Amino acid sequence: MRAYRMTGWGEPPQTTTVPVPAPGPGQILIRVAGCGLCRSDLTMRRIPQSAGTAMGWQMPFTLGHETAGHVAALGAGAEGFTVGEAVALVSPTSCGTCDFCVRGRDSDCAAGLTGRGYGRDGGLASFVLVPGRRDLLRLGDLDPRTAGPLTDAGATAYHAVRRALPRISPGGTVVVIGAGGLGAFAVQFLRALTAASVIAVDPLPARRAYATSVGAHAAEVSTPRLAADAVLDFAGTDETITAGVAAVRPGGAYGLIGSAGGTLRRPWFGNLPRDGEVFTFQGSTIADAREVIALARAGLIRNEVEEFGFDEIGTAYERLAGGTLAGRAVVTVD
Amino acid sequence: MRAYRMTGWGEPPQTTTVPVPAPGPGQILIRVAGCGLCRSDLTMRRIPQSAGTAMGWQMPFTLGHETAGHVAALGAGAEGFTVGEAVALVSPTSCGTCDFCVRGRDSDCAAGLTGRGYGRDGGLASFVLVPGRRDLLRLGDLDPRTAGPLTDAGATAYHAVRRALPRISPGGTVVVIGAGGLGAFAVQFLRALTAASVIAVDPLPARRAYATSVGAHAAEVSTPRLAADAVLDFAGTDETITAGVAAVRPGGAYGLIGSAGGTLRRPWFGNLPRDGEVFTFQGSTIADAREVIALARAGLIRNEVEEFGFDEIGTAYERLAGGTLAGRAVVTVD
Amino acid sequence: MRAYRMTGWGEPPQTTTVPVPAPGPGQILIRVAGCGLCRSDLTMRRIPQSAGTAMGWQMPFTLGHETAGHVAALGAGAEGFTVGEAVALVSPTSCGTCDFCVRGRDSDCAAGLTGRGYGRDGGLASFVLVPGRRDLLRLGDLDPRTAGPLTDAGATAYHAVRRALPRISPGGTVVVIGAGGLGAFAVQFLRALTAASVIAVDPLPARRAYATSVGAHAAEVSTPRLAADAVLDFAGTDETITAGVAAVRPGGAYGLIGSAGGTLRRPWFGNLPRDGEVFTFQGSTIADAREVIALARAGLIRNEVEEFGFDEIGTAYERLAGGTLAGRAVVTVD
Amino acid sequence: MRAYRMTGWGEPPQTTTVPVPAPGPGQILIRVAGCGLCRSDLTMRRIPQSAGTAMGWQMPFTLGHETAGHVAALGAGAEGFTVGEAVALVSPTSCGTCDFCVRGRDSDCAAGLTGRGYGRDGGLASFVLVPGRRDLLRLGDLDPRTAGPLTDAGATAYHAVRRALPRISPGGTVVVIGAGGLGAFAVQFLRALTAASVIAVDPLPARRAYATSVGAHAAEVSTPRLAADAVLDFAGTDETITAGVAAVRPGGAYGLIGSAGGTLRRPWFGNLPRDGEVFTFQGSTIADAREVIALARAGLIRNEVEEFGFDEIGTAYERLAGGTLAGRAVVTVD
Repeated sequence: MRAYRMTGWGEPPQTTTVPVPAPGPGQILIRVAGCGLCRSDLTMRRIPQSAGTAMGWQMPFTLGHETAGHVAALGAGAEGFTVGEAVALVSPTSCGTCDFCVRGRDSDCAAGLTGRGYGRDGGLASFVLVPGRRDLLRLGDLDPRTAGPLTDAGATAYHAVRRALPRISPGGTVVVIGAGGLGAFAVQFLRALTAASVIAVDPLPARRAYATSVGAHAAEVSTPRLAADAVLDFAGTDETITAGVAAVRPGGAYGLIGSAGGTLRRPWFGNLPRDGEVFTFQGSTIADAREVIALARAGLIRNEVEEFGFDEIGTAYERLAGGTLAGRAVVTVD
Repeated sequence: MRAYRMTGWGEPPQTTTVPVPAPGPGQILIRVAGCGLCRSDLTMRRIPQSAGTAMGWQMPFTLGHETAGHVAALGAGAEGFTVGEAVALVSPTSCGTCDFCVRGRDSDCAAGLTGRGYGRDGGLASFVLVPGRRDLLRLGDLDPRTAGPLTDAGATAYHAVRRALPRISPGGTVVVIGAGGLGAFAVQFLRALTAASVIAVDPLPARRAYATSVGAHAAEVSTPRLAADAVLDFAGTDETITAGVAAVRPGGAYGLIGSAGGTLRRPWFGNLPRDGEVFTFQGSTIADAREVIALARAGLIRNEVEEFGFDEIGTAYERLAGGTLAGRAVVTVD
Repeated sequence: MRAYRMTGWGEPPQTTTVPVPAPGPGQILIRVAGCGLCRSDLTMRRIPQSAGTAMGWQMPFTLGHETAGHVAALGAGAEGFTVGEAVALVSPTSCGTCDFCVRGRDSDCAAGLTGRGYGRDGGLASFVLVPGRRDLLRLGDLDPRTAGPLTDAGATAYHAVRRALPRISPGGTVVVIGAGGLGAFAVQFLRALTAASVIAVDPLPARRAYATSVGAHAAEVSTPRLAADAVLDFAGTDETITAGVAAVRPGGAYGLIGSAGGTLRRPWFGNLPRDGEVFTFQGSTIADAREVIALARAGLIRNEVEEFGFDEIGTAYERLAGGTLAGRAVVTVD
Repeated sequence: MRAYRMTGWGEPPQTTTVPVPAPGPGQILIRVAGCGLCRSDLTMRRIPQSAGTAMGWQMPFTLGHETAGHVAALGAGAEGFTVGEAVALVSPTSCGTCDFCVRGRDSDCAAGLTGRGYGRDGGLASFVLVPGRRDLLRLGDLDPRTAGPLTDAGATAYHAVRRALPRISPGGTVVVIGAGGLGAFAVQFLRALTAASVIAVDPLPARRAYATSVGAHAAEVSTPRLAADAVLDFAGTDETITAGVAAVRPGGAYGLIGSAGGTLRRPWFGNLPRDGEVFTFQGSTIADAREVIALARAGLIRNEVEEFGFDEIGTAYERLAGGTLAGRAVVTVD
């Protein structure tokens, strides 16, 4: 089968041919229908071998960690799904056993630094193997060609919203900084789960327009000075962090999801939200992903994607790198 | 009566004579038995008039915000306490009405920037007036000459512990950075309310010894590299913040209570505790103070103080400034 | 002024003439615009003197605990509102001081057994007096003639929803048993604050139709057998309790708001929701009422009322007792 | 090897000889050191085949669900433990995959109705097999001959305490009804994790004495009339439920752990704790069991057991049925 793979540390990915994997005991084989592309894919070719090895990555591996498709075959003893059923994949390979996993905090599991599409074979191929049903999400009548981004871009944004929810009240305001793929999901989750005013902040007019179209009450070029219940920052520069923490009311939350590497160049005491909460994280839990799928199945969120064929993967990554995509890029696989 | 007062912006405090206040409708007059001194008292003489006025402070005012004594007289309609009863005072003059106060978050009330002892008459006098019983804490058989620090140093440390509690599990570790007055209270609250290992960190041998004597399982010169459930930082320098956030496990809490003005000079993404919580605050709620009094009445915490007479206030503040006190300084008033 | 009052224990209420109250220090006088009628008003004439006295009620008193109007006059020192401003009233006279009130749990305050309209003068009069601004809710551009029910029927239903919220997830189901005044509010709050499926249960077709019109995904004659995240029971008979607790998934919530006096005639172990939560309560907190007003001001809830003049109070209560009202009865006062 | 087994529906258990199981891929074989006996074992011989089958039980099976021992062999690919290491077993065979398991609520997993010792082979044998490391608890230097009861009697009591914790404050009171095996654990957890007053209630003087010896502040014959933060009822009769719910303050918790089949014969509205919480459950989560082991390893709880040899199992069950045991019965296996 065709697979779009990292073949060596520091080398660009390429399309190669690999055998279709066979499901061992308990494993489930998925025929891929579509796989979303993520900005983090672009950085993988630059990760040094030492860093990759430290995270447990095995080279070579197939890229793609926003995967959906249909169940193709069940290994011996595998249960809970039937051949042909539409599913999406949880990508991080959390262990299911550690002190985080048994408390439902699998996104903090150390084993989750590896995943299908980063250090293990992912979804930019005709087939992908999962170790068991814990990693599958039932799609019902959602289209698996385009559902992949729900499991990563969607679930990460959802995790941010879920963390902030207890601090958001009717009559309050939430600011979403950065209205790209994740931010636009966050706007929608906030509209579905709160009665707060949602303000999207983005320098790009097209993103502001999209944010408004999916429910933001307002869209601004820069973070307004206010007393928000929560600020979710999908950028993460010095500037957005400084403006973001300043915009939180006492007792509110500032959540950092954007990895731009910023910090706060002011004393924390007196500048962080008074008696509030600052949090940051990577990824999402299995439960997050299930709830995002539930929201999508209920018709409560829109998942805007631009589709590319398998032969267009290079073009799709160029568009992604150039920031000219409308919505998430998805590679459909036949 | 004698009162130790701020008499002008930028001027040192002095002992003066003022009339004994008379309780108006609903008000309660307290005869002071003792009043603790706080490091923040020392900074008040340096606050510019513009800043003080912005916080609603009225000059002159009597210093002292860790006050306890006996009910001396009840104004018309005042209820719930009897003359002679031993009480401590809540110092911040929260409004009781705003969106924070009606949710039990009175330490975030904007009116609480003013308090008895900062902008209003406090406890370094023979008598002090409170507007109603909401501000009084029943002491039972606790000694009001020395109970004052429970309401501020104690309650602030308690608030920090209470914020971190949901993230602390049996088998976990909590680090308390800075084992002075507040930190030593925090160690005791952690021992009373958790089954975690408590590690105190302080450069001073005397403080480490005291921390151990009140229950710390270990006392270190610097923050160890570990994966703590929580780190409570009563110092707040660049160094303690950097070491503190690095010592928190995924999902843990870093609480900043110390006002030394530090920050984190590293990117937040990837360096703040993964999916954890960073919080900071000032002061404590009325409920916090009540629970601290309950802990003291149950004999579960030690409140080490060094006593000074009213004529020794100057000396006491010098000792406080010089860092040579063993425990909190309390001025006893007859 | 005219006032509709309880004049003696066990006697029916009547319209009488009483002096307009004058606001004392801190108090605020409200000119009533409208006052909602509540089923509990009908039971007050049957409360024995001993029971009423035990709750602290003073006879005579003016009925009406769903009051809104305009600020008419401010007593000495009263602040925060201006004459003419539209406001609604919090009815329970919670103390603001007890261990419940200082934690934001004022609906559990013992003093709240008395309130404006039950044991103290309420809103079925031209004017009503409140002891201070803690009891006023800013209405903005909401119409005070009809806003009263938001503070009681609305806020009670909101309290129930708020209790259940942490157990409700996207993809889940919530059942509202009883789609009358409170239940219809609950349906709307659930739609505004969750992404769950909302099923209203009511034997009356008109109520089922109304529930659907305000957002219920389905309306049933009886509680379906399912595994709901939460069941909110606004009836409270043996039958609804039995069916309600059986319809809760493990870890879900059953909330009893209806006072019909039912119980569960089965062993609790094995029949109450496994590792879930059963709760009941009366009334709502000040914060609840403020959040309901915020929801109404944001246009997120409909408050259906039927208006009556002051001379029609008797008729209105008859209609209420007979169950023939469409929506809540409100007496408009000029 | 010897095994004490259920060999047929409705038949008494007996000692038989069965082959030592061999660990398949990922599985781990445990040499049993000791296994606790539980009152529920006594009821298993009375469970009808239809009920057993409905829960997924397979006959025959070895009894014993409080098991500890040493790792004897690791199947292919099994990791995380070394041969000879002391471990205890989680007994319920939760699936690790369902909506409960991925949220850390594995005690609500439907698959957990079956477990090692109830429907699958348990610990009353020389060896027992576990499907993977998720089910093993590292004992460190705890003695595996007696550690078994920590995983069931201990963890169930811990789950009850953990559920109630957020409602327990310094200065409050907690009542533990029934000071047998589970109740005595609960007393100890409450002392380790709260600053509340703990009152044990039991009709038996020996149990009251034991409760006091492990930390109860008081021990009573019957539930006192008070306003407790929480009541944990390990009996569960009509009488204890009625007295228990009446003893909870507004906002407090009543937890039912005892399976005596009682109910409340009074209207719920007005009799259940006002705005509090009533909960019941069976079993405990993996995280609960790990935290109990952590408490035991830290020396914070005492686990009183009476030891019996394999040949004395019959006697031990008779003593258990007769209520004449001091502490939990443990069968040591060589």
